Amino acid sequence: MNKPFNDVFLKACRKERTPYIPVWYMRQAGRYQPEYREMRKKYSFFEMSEIPEVCAEVTRLPVKQLGVDAAILFADIMTPLKHIGVQLEIKPGIGPVIENPIHTEQDVSRLGELDPQTHLPTILEAIKILNQQLSVPLIGFAGAPFTLASYIVEGQPSKNYHKTKGLMYSAPDVWNALMKKLGDLTVTYLKGQIAAGAHAVQVFDSWIGALNEQDYKIYVAPVMRHIFTELKTTGVPVIYFGIGAGHLLEEWNRLPVDVIGIDWRTSIRSARGRGIDKVLQGNLDPSLLLAPWELIKQRTREILDQGMEEPGYIFNLGHGIFPSVKVETLQKLTSFIHEYTKR
Amino acid sequence: MNKPFNDVFLKACRKERTPYIPVWYMRQAGRYQPEYREMRKKYSFFEMSEIPEVCAEVTRLPVKQLGVDAAILFADIMTPLKHIGVQLEIKPGIGPVIENPIHTEQDVSRLGELDPQTHLPTILEAIKILNQQLSVPLIGFAGAPFTLASYIVEGQPSKNYHKTKGLMYSAPDVWNALMKKLGDLTVTYLKGQIAAGAHAVQVFDSWIGALNEQDYKIYVAPVMRHIFTELKTTGVPVIYFGIGAGHLLEEWNRLPVDVIGIDWRTSIRSARGRGIDKVLQGNLDPSLLLAPWELIKQRTREILDQGMEEPGYIFNLGHGIFPSVKVETLQKLTSFIHEYTKR
Repeated sequence: MNKPFNDVFLKACRKERTPYIPVWYMRQAGRYQPEYREMRKKYSFFEMSEIPEVCAEVTRLPVKQLGVDAAILFADIMTPLKHIGVQLEIKPGIGPVIENPIHTEQDVSRLGELDPQTHLPTILEAIKILNQQLSVPLIGFAGAPFTLASYIVEGQPSKNYHKTKGLMYSAPDVWNALMKKLGDLTVTYLKGQIAAGAHAVQVFDSWIGALNEQDYKIYVAPVMRHIFTELKTTGVPVIYFGIGAGHLLEEWNRLPVDVIGIDWRTSIRSARGRGIDKVLQGNLDPSLLLAPWELIKQRTREILDQGMEEPGYIFNLGHGIFPSVKVETLQKLTSFIHEYTKR
Repeated sequence: MNKPFNDVFLKACRKERTPYIPVWYMRQAGRYQPEYREMRKKYSFFEMSEIPEVCAEVTRLPVKQLGVDAAILFADIMTPLKHIGVQLEIKPGIGPVIENPIHTEQDVSRLGELDPQTHLPTILEAIKILNQQLSVPLIGFAGAPFTLASYIVEGQPSKNYHKTKGLMYSAPDVWNALMKKLGDLTVTYLKGQIAAGAHAVQVFDSWIGALNEQDYKIYVAPVMRHIFTELKTTGVPVIYFGIGAGHLLEEWNRLPVDVIGIDWRTSIRSARGRGIDKVLQGNLDPSLLLAPWELIKQRTREILDQGMEEPGYIFNLGHGIFPSVKVETLQKLTSFIHEYTKR
């Protein structure tokens, strides 16, 4: 490790004063990178996340290439589910498809428990390698129970989550058992990542915006409170992210989590105006990465101006980078953010 | 026509006092009905909407079967596009697929103008037949420019609308030309439906929630203002509906539209609390139709209590009915709403 360790991201997570606004990007390792596409010719997605050296290389790539202030482990939120009995396949053009969707109490009771040391030693190994190599913090991550449930109840990606919510409404005991199982999985998996060396963790509740506040409170908030309470004991910052979940921010603000990741539908200023006092992470619309540079710069400046009004702000996109984005755009963006916010 | 005409829905659209809360359901004609499934064995989807007698029969079915206070024309928002040069096919399991997606100024300029009399005489004929047969108001409808654009720019249903927004950000002239063309189409199509006898119209902007308020103001609000201003001259009530668009309600409230349709993510009370003073339509989560009756009743009662706090409220779902819903559930729900709100 030649460079001194850059802890700007971790300081922002703790609402400490930072020399500039830190930035990382969701899905910063991905198909938009020529180097990634080259590697994907040699390895499948799961191989890339499960061969420690390859995982470490892909995870490091955007740090070198873009100059971001944090790395995020290259993995898939569905990976741990394979080890508790979910028969899972990633089908091209569709996404995760489940052979044995979960609908009954029996289905839930058949799900096992995750033991990261036994089931996911390669991921823990990748974290250890990265800890030797990186000069920025490494973010570990996991899927949140509702979002994981949305896949394993529907059996495939869904737009409306009718089966998932149908189960939730009509069989609350089965639902709660499933939330408990997936909540325990999330805690165990993330504690394993933290023990191996992750400096922070992000919980992806990508599809939680499908629920209104009332249902969130009843059916999901208890398990999230449990997860965040457990993770708090580790001392590392915890980020909670969801898409289209602006209507849930007041509920999220009451949870024992450090950072809230928001998408572009809610401005940083309006969130602050609603009394959201957690550290905020976000929220450029990733589609804007296709815009001319002047517009990207203008919108980024507006977001940064809002973010800098109060301590505790991390720049990110409102959702992941997608394949048609140019590497150069993200390089320029990262430099601009660092330059513009230097204090 | 034996029954006297039931104008409760139209009165609610005009914020007049009504003897009870009127109700209709988005996609109230559809695959959840055994009779609909029978008809679909004989006709394709487009045949069903384009053979006037069949269209009228499908449109009437839920009025008889459920006792709702309005009928909505059985049609597809994509239909008019076929007549202005969009090569469109509905692919099973995918949705509308476009052979010639729109990306350039030339693509836009090649799109023709809609003449409902010439292009869609069967739809106008169906409306005339329905006007003879129905004892409730008939709602006409069309897709809104952003939502139509999201299909014809992407070329197929999309989750993120990157291409659509990419065009919007990087080629605002092409975007504005496209919005103008689609806006004119929407106006012409709806005026045609109104001239044929539709008593109200709903503009479906299903995917508009993908934009934040800033982009909505810049790229979409002008064409929506134009559409609603034009439709206002007809004197019939106009409803504007979108999914996951709670963050746009303040903007919508400034448009010359009569009724705002909201999904379950925003409660009626919170919309009122934010100063939204239009008539509101909604907003039971359709997934709740899979819940036990007691829970459906409880949640419906809560929504009705909120809706009745101020004049100008119409019960509906927050999105369309889906195939696994039982007809009996909607029959019970409709009766309950009428009973509970009788005054």
